[in-house]
Amino acid sequence: MQITPVLLCGGSGTRLWPLSRKSYPKQFAPLTGGATLFQASARRLAGPGFAPPLVVTGAEFRFIVTEQLAAAGVDPGAILIEPEGRNTAPAVLAAAVHAAAADPEAILLVAPSDHVIPDAAAFRAAVQAGLPAVAAGRLVTFGIAPDRPETGYGWLELAAAPDGTGAPVPLTRFVEKPDAARAAAMLAAGTYLWNAGIFLFRAADILAAFRAHAPGLIAPVTAAVEGAKADLGFLRLAAGPWGQAEAISIDYAVMERAGNLSVVPYAGAWSDLGGWDAVWREAGPDAAGVVAAGHATAIDCADTLLRSEAEGLELVGLGLSGIVAVAMPDAVLVAAKDRAQDVKLAVAALKARGARQAEVFPRDHRPWGWFESLAVGPRFQVKRIVVHPGAALSLQSHHHRSEHWIVVQGTARVTVDGEVRLVTENQSVYIPLGAVHRMENPGKVEMVLIEVQTGSYLGEDDIIRYEDVYARG
Amino acid sequence: MQITPVLLCGGSGTRLWPLSRKSYPKQFAPLTGGATLFQASARRLAGPGFAPPLVVTGAEFRFIVTEQLAAAGVDPGAILIEPEGRNTAPAVLAAAVHAAAADPEAILLVAPSDHVIPDAAAFRAAVQAGLPAVAAGRLVTFGIAPDRPETGYGWLELAAAPDGTGAPVPLTRFVEKPDAARAAAMLAAGTYLWNAGIFLFRAADILAAFRAHAPGLIAPVTAAVEGAKADLGFLRLAAGPWGQAEAISIDYAVMERAGNLSVVPYAGAWSDLGGWDAVWREAGPDAAGVVAAGHATAIDCADTLLRSEAEGLELVGLGLSGIVAVAMPDAVLVAAKDRAQDVKLAVAALKARGARQAEVFPRDHRPWGWFESLAVGPRFQVKRIVVHPGAALSLQSHHHRSEHWIVVQGTARVTVDGEVRLVTENQSVYIPLGAVHRMENPGKVEMVLIEVQTGSYLGEDDIIRYEDVYARG
Repeated sequence: MQITPVLLCGGSGTRLWPLSRKSYPKQFAPLTGGATLFQASARRLAGPGFAPPLVVTGAEFRFIVTEQLAAAGVDPGAILIEPEGRNTAPAVLAAAVHAAAADPEAILLVAPSDHVIPDAAAFRAAVQAGLPAVAAGRLVTFGIAPDRPETGYGWLELAAAPDGTGAPVPLTRFVEKPDAARAAAMLAAGTYLWNAGIFLFRAADILAAFRAHAPGLIAPVTAAVEGAKADLGFLRLAAGPWGQAEAISIDYAVMERAGNLSVVPYAGAWSDLGGWDAVWREAGPDAAGVVAAGHATAIDCADTLLRSEAEGLELVGLGLSGIVAVAMPDAVLVAAKDRAQDVKLAVAALKARGARQAEVFPRDHRPWGWFESLAVGPRFQVKRIVVHPGAALSLQSHHHRSEHWIVVQGTARVTVDGEVRLVTENQSVYIPLGAVHRMENPGKVEMVLIEVQTGSYLGEDDIIRYEDVYARG
Repeated sequence: MQITPVLLCGGSGTRLWPLSRKSYPKQFAPLTGGATLFQASARRLAGPGFAPPLVVTGAEFRFIVTEQLAAAGVDPGAILIEPEGRNTAPAVLAAAVHAAAADPEAILLVAPSDHVIPDAAAFRAAVQAGLPAVAAGRLVTFGIAPDRPETGYGWLELAAAPDGTGAPVPLTRFVEKPDAARAAAMLAAGTYLWNAGIFLFRAADILAAFRAHAPGLIAPVTAAVEGAKADLGFLRLAAGPWGQAEAISIDYAVMERAGNLSVVPYAGAWSDLGGWDAVWREAGPDAAGVVAAGHATAIDCADTLLRSEAEGLELVGLGLSGIVAVAMPDAVLVAAKDRAQDVKLAVAALKARGARQAEVFPRDHRPWGWFESLAVGPRFQVKRIVVHPGAALSLQSHHHRSEHWIVVQGTARVTVDGEVRLVTENQSVYIPLGAVHRMENPGKVEMVLIEVQTGSYLGEDDIIRYEDVYARG
C-alpha cells in the first residue's frame, strides 16, 4: 500500500524575516540550496511507495504551491485551501477526512514543509520502519537523535532506549521546551529524542483519535471538507464551518492525549530552521563560526551569519561577534545572534509603523508570474513584470493611471480596447487611462517587461477586472 | 581687507563607506542635516568680510561642486581642478600662487570642506580674532578645545594656556595622534588643543614658508598654476608639472617646520566626521547611546548607530551593542563601532573582489543631473535619469543598444536624427540603435525620465559624442 504525504504549508513567516514574510513564508524561499524547503519536502516524499501528496495551504499561497510543485516535477494529489490558518489540528483532520472518504485505510505521512532533512533516502527508510506499528493501529511520530541540549524544541520521552535498528519504541510522554539543565539531563539519559512534528498513521486511526480526544473539531472540519468547492484544481474548504474549528495544534489536541503513540528514532540530520541561529548552524560555519552567503563579505568576524539576498547588494561585516545580518533590497535585519528567536519583535515594530516590509515580500507572486517595484516617484512607478509561458493577466482597466509597457525579453500578446497585437523584445505599447487591456505570454520562455505607470493614484486596488482565467474578483 | 576662503575638496571617501565613496566623497552627502558638509563649509565662510571662495577639487567632482555651490547660493571666485590628488600641500600652494598673482597680500583661510562646525558665527569670530597675528606675518592655525582624551586626532601644544579672550597663542609644537595615556595627560594640562587643519595667513607669508621648508614644491606647482587652462569656468592645473609635485600634507611639508605659528583657540563644537563613530557622536545619541536615522528601527539596542540611506529601505537592529549599521540600496555595512576606523578594510575587500560598490556611488552625478540603475537584466537595463532645468545631455549615438524613454516628470526636448520634439509627462520616445540623439530639459523644473535600454552590450562606454556643452570627450 502506498503512503500519502500530507504536506502542511502554512506559516506566518516571522522567524526568518526579512527573507521570510507573511506573504511569502520560508518554505517557499531557496534557503539552503537551489530547491526551496517546500520543493525538497515534496521530493523527499515522492517516488516508489508514495502516492501523490495532499497539500494543505492558504489561499494566498496556492499559486506559489502549484508553481513550485511543477518546477520540482511533483504532481499533487489534491491541494486543500484553508480559508484561514487554524493551526495544525484542523489541517491534519481535514486531510484525514479527505483521504478517508476515498479509503479509510489510507496511510498518511503528515509533515511540515519547512524542515531540513538532507538525507532523503535515510528518512524514507525511517518511514518504512514505522509501517509495522501503523499496521498495528499505532500513531507513529518521528524522534530526532539529539546532538546538543536544545532548549528550543519539544522532546519525546521513550519507554526504552532505541535498540539501534530503527524499530519503533512506545512513547511515554511529550516534554515541553525544557530549560538548559533539563535539556542536558535528557541528552545524557539516552531515552529522549527531539519532537520533529512528523506523523505516520492510517486515516481511520487518526480519525478515531480525534473522536476520542478532540471531538469538537469533528463536525466543523468534516463540514468544511464536505462543503469544499473545486476551483481551478484547488479544493477550497468551506469557510463557514472552518471558522468554527478551534485553532489548536495537533500535539495539544490529540498527540499528547493519545495512549497509542510509537516513536521511530531518526539518527540523520534534521532542522526546523526555526530562526536565523538555526540557519547559521545548518549552513556549516567555518572555523571562526562565520557563514557568509550571497554577496556577503566577513572581515575579522566570529560566530556570525551574513546573508545578502539580492544580486547587486553587497553586505560587509567588520569585527562582528555573535551577529546575524540579513540584507534584502527593501529591508535589512541586524540582530544579536542570541536574540534570533525575537525577530518577531522586528516584524511587530515595522507593522506598528505601517511599513509594508513587515509582511509583504518585494516580489509579488501571482498565478501568472510575479512583479516587483523598481522605483516609486510622486506620480509614477516602475515595475518589472515576469509572465510565465502560456499565462495571462486578467482583462482589466484602471481609473487613475496609464501605463507604458516595454518588452525586454520574450514576446507579449497585448490586447488594448479589443485590438490584439504581438509585442516583442525592444518594442513598447501604451495603455491609456481607462483602456481595457490584457497582457499574455503566448511563447515558450518567460516574458519580461518593464511597466512605467503614471497617474495620480498607483495602488494595486485601482483595477477593474473583466475576465480572469484565475477566477479572481 | 576681505578674507578669501580656500575650500579643499578632495577626499578618498573610504572612512564613511558605503555612504561616502571615491566617486562621491562625504563632503557632498547630506550627512547631518539638509545641506551637505561642502555646502555648509562654503556658507560658513561667506558674507561680510569674505571674498568669493577658491575651491580646489578633482576633475570628477567639478560638476558636483558647481551644482552644490549654486544650490547653496554661493558664487565661487575660482575652481582649481587638480589633475590628480597630491595631498594638501600642493593644493594649498596652488591656491596661494593663484591668489598671490592678483594680490600677494591676499588673506587666505584654508579649510577642509568635510568638517562639522555648527556655530558659524562663533567660527567667523575666531577667524577675525586671528587677523592681528596674520597682519604680523604669522601663520595662524585653529585649535579646538578638547572635551575628551581623543586618540584619533593630532594635537597642538601651546606656549601658554589660552586666556579666554580667544586671542592667538604661539604654538610650541604639533603632537602626532597620541596613545590614551598621553591624550589624558594633554586633556588635563590645559595647554593642548586639537589640530583642526584650518589655517589663516597672507598669500605672501605662506609662499615664503613653502620656499623655506618645502622648496621642491615651488617649481612644479607654480608651473601647474601658470599653465592652467580655463575650461567652462574651471581652471585646470597643468597635469605635467602637477604630477611632479610631491604628494605630502601641508602639516608635514610646512606647518610642523615653520617657527612662526600662532593658534587661535576655538571653544565651539567641531568634528572632522572621520568615521562612523564620529557620526554617531555628532548625531546626538539617546540615553541608551542609540542613533537611528532614516528608516531605521532600534529594538533593545545600546551604543549603536543605525542609518538607512534610502527611501523604502527598512533597517532594524535587534539586541545590538556597540554596532554601526549603514544600509544603502546597493551596499550594507555592519561593523563593530570600535572598528569604525577600519572601514577602509571593507572598501579594500570589495575592491579586490571587483565590486563596483567599493568606489562607485549608486547615483552617478553628471554635469546635466544624475542617473541611477534600477534594474539590470541579461539584455536590458532600466535607469532613472534626472535632468536639471536648462541642462542638456550630449548629442550622441550607441552601437549596441536602443533606448525607450518615458518622461514621468517635467518636459523633455528630444532630438532624434535631426528631428526635434517636446515630450511631456506620460509620453515616450524610441531611440533606435545608431540614431543620433539628444535629451534636454527646456523647462523650469527637474525633468525625470525612465530609460529602458535593450541590446547586447549596455556599458556606459558605448557612446559616441558629437556635441557636448560640457566639453567631454
